[in-house]
Amino acid sequence: MSTDEPLISNAKLLAFGETILGKLDVSQEHAALTSRILLDADLRGVASHGMAHLVDFYVRRLQMGKINPRPELKLDSDQPSAATLDAGNGLGFVAGQHAMELAIEKAQTTGIGWVSVGNSTHYGAGGYYAMMALEHDMIGFSMTTGGRLVAPPGGLGRAIGLNVLSVAAPTSRDFPYVLDMATSVVAAGKLEIARRRGESIPEGWAQTASGEPLTDPAKLHPDSTMLPLGGTPVLGAFKGFGLTIMVDILTGALSGFGTSAEIDAGLTAAHCFGAMRIEAFQPLADYKERMERMIVAVKETPRRAGVDEIMIPGEPEHALAEQRRAHRRVPVHATVLAGFKEAAAELDVTWDLEDAQ
Amino acid sequence: MSTDEPLISNAKLLAFGETILGKLDVSQEHAALTSRILLDADLRGVASHGMAHLVDFYVRRLQMGKINPRPELKLDSDQPSAATLDAGNGLGFVAGQHAMELAIEKAQTTGIGWVSVGNSTHYGAGGYYAMMALEHDMIGFSMTTGGRLVAPPGGLGRAIGLNVLSVAAPTSRDFPYVLDMATSVVAAGKLEIARRRGESIPEGWAQTASGEPLTDPAKLHPDSTMLPLGGTPVLGAFKGFGLTIMVDILTGALSGFGTSAEIDAGLTAAHCFGAMRIEAFQPLADYKERMERMIVAVKETPRRAGVDEIMIPGEPEHALAEQRRAHRRVPVHATVLAGFKEAAAELDVTWDLEDAQ
Repeated sequence: MSTDEPLISNAKLLAFGETILGKLDVSQEHAALTSRILLDADLRGVASHGMAHLVDFYVRRLQMGKINPRPELKLDSDQPSAATLDAGNGLGFVAGQHAMELAIEKAQTTGIGWVSVGNSTHYGAGGYYAMMALEHDMIGFSMTTGGRLVAPPGGLGRAIGLNVLSVAAPTSRDFPYVLDMATSVVAAGKLEIARRRGESIPEGWAQTASGEPLTDPAKLHPDSTMLPLGGTPVLGAFKGFGLTIMVDILTGALSGFGTSAEIDAGLTAAHCFGAMRIEAFQPLADYKERMERMIVAVKETPRRAGVDEIMIPGEPEHALAEQRRAHRRVPVHATVLAGFKEAAAELDVTWDLEDAQ
Repeated sequence: MSTDEPLISNAKLLAFGETILGKLDVSQEHAALTSRILLDADLRGVASHGMAHLVDFYVRRLQMGKINPRPELKLDSDQPSAATLDAGNGLGFVAGQHAMELAIEKAQTTGIGWVSVGNSTHYGAGGYYAMMALEHDMIGFSMTTGGRLVAPPGGLGRAIGLNVLSVAAPTSRDFPYVLDMATSVVAAGKLEIARRRGESIPEGWAQTASGEPLTDPAKLHPDSTMLPLGGTPVLGAFKGFGLTIMVDILTGALSGFGTSAEIDAGLTAAHCFGAMRIEAFQPLADYKERMERMIVAVKETPRRAGVDEIMIPGEPEHALAEQRRAHRRVPVHATVLAGFKEAAAELDVTWDLEDAQ
C-alpha cells in the first residue's frame, strides 16, 4: 500500500458520493447511480475516470451551476431502433444510464438499438455503459466527446477532442471483452498521473505549440496539444484522427448538439450508446464457440521474454475488480482525499473516509 | 506518368474484368459489380485493394475452385434491424453489395440496419460498402476480417488478422467523410508496394520472429508479424489490438463463421455492414450544420510548415477520384498488367488494355 494512495472502503466511498451530491440537490437515485459508476471505474483500475473526479468535475460544477442537478430528459426523436435524447445539461451518468437502457430495450425488439445524446456533461468511464449490455447477452457500445486538446495530423492547435470509444462483448470465459479507449495516443489522465508523480512522458504522446515532442507533462497547458492514436502520419495518425472524427459524428453531429470541435466548455459533452442482441444474429452458443477459439489462439501466441500471458482487452480490469470487490477497498490518492475533506467541510458532510474500517 | 505504371482506360479495365470473370462462370451482373468495386478503389487511389488483385486474388482462386462463382446467398437470421447472411463462399463483392443493401433497407424502416456475413471471401476495399449509405443520407459501416499476420501486444506470432474498419458519413461539403483503415499500423499492401520498389519500411510497422524491428519488407514471410495500430504498448498497441478484436467479434463471431484467428485460408472472410439513417436521429440540416462547424475548426487549425491544408478523412480520395474519372484513366503497375495479359491468353480474352485509347 502506497502512503500516497491509502485504501478506502468501497461502501464509505459510495455513501460519501451519495451524500455530497445530495447536498447539491441531486436526487438520491441519481446520486447513488453516479457514485456507483465512479466507484466501478476505481474497481477496474481506471482511476483517471473514477472517484478522483467526484469533487473537481461534478461537485464543483454543480456548485457553479454548470450542471443541472434536476435535469429534464427529453427524447428529440424516437424510432424503433434509434433515438436522440436531450440530457437537459444534467449529470452525464444519468443520461448515460437512461440512454443505454433505452438502446437495450430497442435491441430486445428489433435486434439493435442506438441512442445519441446531446446537451450532456462528462459521464465518467465509457466502459460502464457498454458493459450494461452484457447481462442481456448483447454487445454494447458507448462513445463520447472529450476535452478539445488534440491536434489533427499536420496541425499544431487544439481542434478536436479526447474522444472515447467503448465496446463490450460477452466471451466464452468469466471475463467480458471490454475496449475502453481514447482515440488519442493516451488519455489526458495519463499526463495528470505523470505530472503528479513528477515523471516525464514518452515522446509521441503530445507536442509543443511549435510541434516539438513534449515530454514534460506539466507543460501541456496552455498551448501544447495531444496527438491522435498513431502519433505520426507514418505510424497511423490519420487513423486515430479518423476515429476521433467518427466519434464526433456519432455523438455531436448525430445528436445535433455539436462535436468536440465546438462544445468543449465546462465538461459539456455529447454521447452515443448502442446495443446489439447476439441472438438476433446467431445462436449464443455458436457465438461463444467462436470467441473461445479466438481467445485460445491469442493466448497460445508465442510471447516476448517476460510476458507471462497475453490478456484479452478487459481481462486484466475484470481480475482487478474481482480482487478489489473482495477486499472491499480501493486506493484513493492523498490529494484527492484532501479535496474530498475540504468539500465535506464546506457542505457539512460527516467525514469518516479515513477511519479504520 | 511513370513507365512502371501506365495509365489504362477505366472503361477497358471494367470490360476486361467483366469478361475474364465471366469466363470463370461468374454471372454478368456479378462480374460487372466486382469490376466496378475494384475500379472504384483505383479511382480513389487505394491501389492496394483495386484492379491489381483482379487476377491474383479472384481469377486464380476461382480457377482453383476456392471461390464459388454461383453462390447461393442465404439469410441465417432476419430481424427488423439485424440479419446474418451466409455468403455461400462466393465473391465477397456480391455478398457485400447484397448485405449493405439489406442494412440500408432495414435502416429506412427502423433507423438502423446491421448485417453480419459469414462464409465469404475477400471483398476489396471496405470503404465502397460504407459509402453506399451516403446517397440515402445515412452513415455507413463496413468491417471485415483480414489475413492472419498480426501479433497481439507482447506476442511474436500471427494470432489475429489485418482486420478492417470502414465508416462513411455525409458532410456539409461535396466530399463525404470516409475512414477506411486496417486496425494494424499499416495494411499489408504498404509492405507489398515497398517491396516492389526495393524500399525499406519504417520501424514500427512489423517485427521479426524474435521481436526485433523489421525494416526489409521482403523479409515479412514466413514468420515475421505485423503490429496492431499503436505499434508498441506505450504508444497505444492495446488500442489497435482491441479494435482488431472488435472487428473480429462483429464479423466472425456474430456471423458464427469464425474470427480471423481461425479462418485465414484462401482469403476466406467474414464481414459486417451497417447503416444509420441520420433523420431517425436529427434533421439532416442540423446534422450538416454541426459537420460544417467541425470541418471549419479542423481546417482553421494552425499548421506545421509545409502543410498547406488539413484534409478531412475521405477528402483527398474524393478529389483524386474526381480527377481520375475526368481523365478516364487510372495507373496500373506494369507487373499487374503482365499478370492480366497472361491470364487473358490462358482464358482466351481479347487483349486491348495497352492499345492507345
